Amino acid sequence: MKKVISICGSDVDDNYLSQYAIDVAEQVGRLIARKGGVLVCGGQGGVMKAACKGAKEENGITVGILPYTKKDANECIDIAIPTNIGNVRNYLVANSGDAVIAIGGRWGTLNEISYCMVSEKPLILIKGTGGCVDQIINGNLMQDIESHYFIANSAEEAVEKAFNL
Amino acid sequence: MKKVISICGSDVDDNYLSQYAIDVAEQVGRLIARKGGVLVCGGQGGVMKAACKGAKEENGITVGILPYTKKDANECIDIAIPTNIGNVRNYLVANSGDAVIAIGGRWGTLNEISYCMVSEKPLILIKGTGGCVDQIINGNLMQDIESHYFIANSAEEAVEKAFNL
Amino acid sequence: MKKVISICGSDVDDNYLSQYAIDVAEQVGRLIARKGGVLVCGGQGGVMKAACKGAKEENGITVGILPYTKKDANECIDIAIPTNIGNVRNYLVANSGDAVIAIGGRWGTLNEISYCMVSEKPLILIKGTGGCVDQIINGNLMQDIESHYFIANSAEEAVEKAFNL
Amino acid sequence: MKKVISICGSDVDDNYLSQYAIDVAEQVGRLIARKGGVLVCGGQGGVMKAACKGAKEENGITVGILPYTKKDANECIDIAIPTNIGNVRNYLVANSGDAVIAIGGRWGTLNEISYCMVSEKPLILIKGTGGCVDQIINGNLMQDIESHYFIANSAEEAVEKAFNL
Repeated sequence: MKKVISICGSDVDDNYLSQYAIDVAEQVGRLIARKGGVLVCGGQGGVMKAACKGAKEENGITVGILPYTKKDANECIDIAIPTNIGNVRNYLVANSGDAVIAIGGRWGTLNEISYCMVSEKPLILIKGTGGCVDQIINGNLMQDIESHYFIANSAEEAVEKAFNL
Repeated sequence: MKKVISICGSDVDDNYLSQYAIDVAEQVGRLIARKGGVLVCGGQGGVMKAACKGAKEENGITVGILPYTKKDANECIDIAIPTNIGNVRNYLVANSGDAVIAIGGRWGTLNEISYCMVSEKPLILIKGTGGCVDQIINGNLMQDIESHYFIANSAEEAVEKAFNL
Repeated sequence: MKKVISICGSDVDDNYLSQYAIDVAEQVGRLIARKGGVLVCGGQGGVMKAACKGAKEENGITVGILPYTKKDANECIDIAIPTNIGNVRNYLVANSGDAVIAIGGRWGTLNEISYCMVSEKPLILIKGTGGCVDQIINGNLMQDIESHYFIANSAEEAVEKAFNL
Repeated sequence: MKKVISICGSDVDDNYLSQYAIDVAEQVGRLIARKGGVLVCGGQGGVMKAACKGAKEENGITVGILPYTKKDANECIDIAIPTNIGNVRNYLVANSGDAVIAIGGRWGTLNEISYCMVSEKPLILIKGTGGCVDQIINGNLMQDIESHYFIANSAEEAVEKAFNL
C-alpha cells in the first residue's frame, strides 16, 4: 500500500495566493512523488494544481477528489474521483491522507484543517505561505484549544514530517 | 414550513466553555422557540444542550443531527437524526439552518463556521462567548478573505438577525 | 425523544405509482401522527407527499431530508433539511428512522431499502403497493441472502410493527 | 486523466459467492489494467480482492474506498481512501467510475447498483456470477422502471463495454 499525502490550499481565484505558495506547492508535489507517495487533493487549481504539476514532473500519482464531476479536474490529475457532494468533499480530501499538508488557503482550507483537528489527522502547516495557514500560526489561533498541528518552514521539512508521522 | 435555525458551539468537555456562553445559548434557544422556529444542532452537550433546554422551556421543537446513534443525544432533543458519519455530520448541521448562530466553540465549531463561509450560509457569531467565535472576531481572522458573517452582541440581537436574513 | 419513522417510496413522476399506494401512504402518515411519531421522508412528491399530508391531517410533525435545497420540499413538510448531496441523501432518510416503511418505489427506494439491509435497520414493506416493494416480495429477491425485512398487508399493520420493533 | 472503472461485488463472507464469480473478477481486473485503466472498489475481500489481484498481476493501479480505516484494505490495494462513513462509502465507489461493473453481490452491491440507476451512471452486470446480479437479470427486476444497465456474458465483454461507454 502506498503512502498517501493530502494537500490543501487555495484555488486559483484567491487574489492573495502568492508565487511563493505556488512554488512551495510544486516542490511539495515533487518531493512526495520522489518518495513514492501518492498525492491526494481537491483536484482543482491554484495550490492543488501546482502540487500535482510537481508530482507529475517526478512521475508521481495524483488523485483529485472533486466537488462534482471530472470536468472540475486540473490537467495534472491522474485519477479523478468525482463526488457530487460539493464542498462536503473537503472532509474526504482531509481524511484520505496519512498526513495532510496545508499551504496558504481560505475558508475551504480552514474547513479541511478544522476537520483534521477534530479527527486527529496529522496536519502540517507550511509557514510563510499566507492565507489561513499563516493566520493560524501568527495569530496563535486556538493554540490552547486542543490543537495538534506541526509547523514546517519549507516544502522539504513538511514532506519529511508527513512521511515520518 | 418552519424557520430553522442551527446552533453551533462547544460540547460539555470544553474546559474553556464559560457560564456566560451557556446562558447565551439558553436564551438563544428560548427566543428561537418563542418566534416559532425549529432549533437544529449537533444534539450533544454544552452549548447544544443549553440551547435545547431553552427551546424546550418555551415549547419549541429541537432537532439533533448526531455523529453516530440516538444514544449520543442530550435529553432535550425531540427529533434525533442519527447519521453514522461521525464529525462529517457537522456540515449537515450547518447546511440545515436558514441561518446559523455560533457560540464559543473549538475546532468542531470552526469546522461548521468554515463550511458556512464556503457555502454562503448566513452566519451570526455572538461576541463575548469565547472560543473560536471570539478568536475570529478579535483576531480579524481572514477578515479580508471572503468572510461574510454577522457579529451580534447578545442572544436577542443574534436571533433577531437570524430570522431576518 | 420522539419515535421517528422514515417513509420511502416513489416521487410523483413514477408512471406506475397507483392510487392504492398513495392511499396507503396517507393512512401511514395519519397513523404515525396519531401515535405521536415524527415522519421523516425525502421531502418530495408522490408517496412522500401523501404520507406528509396524512400526518398533517392529524397534526403530526413532518421532516423532509432534501437532495438539494428547501425549494425541493412539498407543502406538507414542517422541517426541511436541505443537504446539497443529491441522491446520497437517501441513506440519511433510511438511517434517521427507528424503523423504515417502504411503499411502492423505484431504484431510489431500492437504494434506501438496500441501505436498510446492510445497516440492519428495521424495515417494513407494504404488500400490494407495487414497484420494487412488490417485486422484492413476489420475486423473493435475495430472500436467502441475509434479508431481514417484515411484510405488512396494510398501513395499520405496518405502523403497528414500526412502533413495536 | 486515466479511465476509472469501479467494481462492485460480494465480500468474502458471502456463502453463495462462487469460484466462477471470483475468476471473472480476477479477469476483469487483469483486463482493466491491460487497457491502462484504474480499478476502484470498496477495497475489501471476495470479488473486490479478486479484481485487485488480477489488476496487480498486470501492473495496474488499484484504489480502495474503505468504510472506515486503511486497516480494512486488502493487500492488493495501492491507494487506500479511508472514509469513516461506513456503508455510505458505497455511493462513492459507484460514483467514482466512468463505468461500474457488478459481479455477484448481496444487498451492499444492490446498494451500489441502485445508486448507479438513480444517478444514470453506466452499469454493466456480468451474467452468471450469481447473487443480486443474476437475480436482477433473471427476475427482470424493475425492467420496466427506468432501468438502463448493460448485460455482459464475460469479463471480456464487460470491460470492452466499460471502456466504450
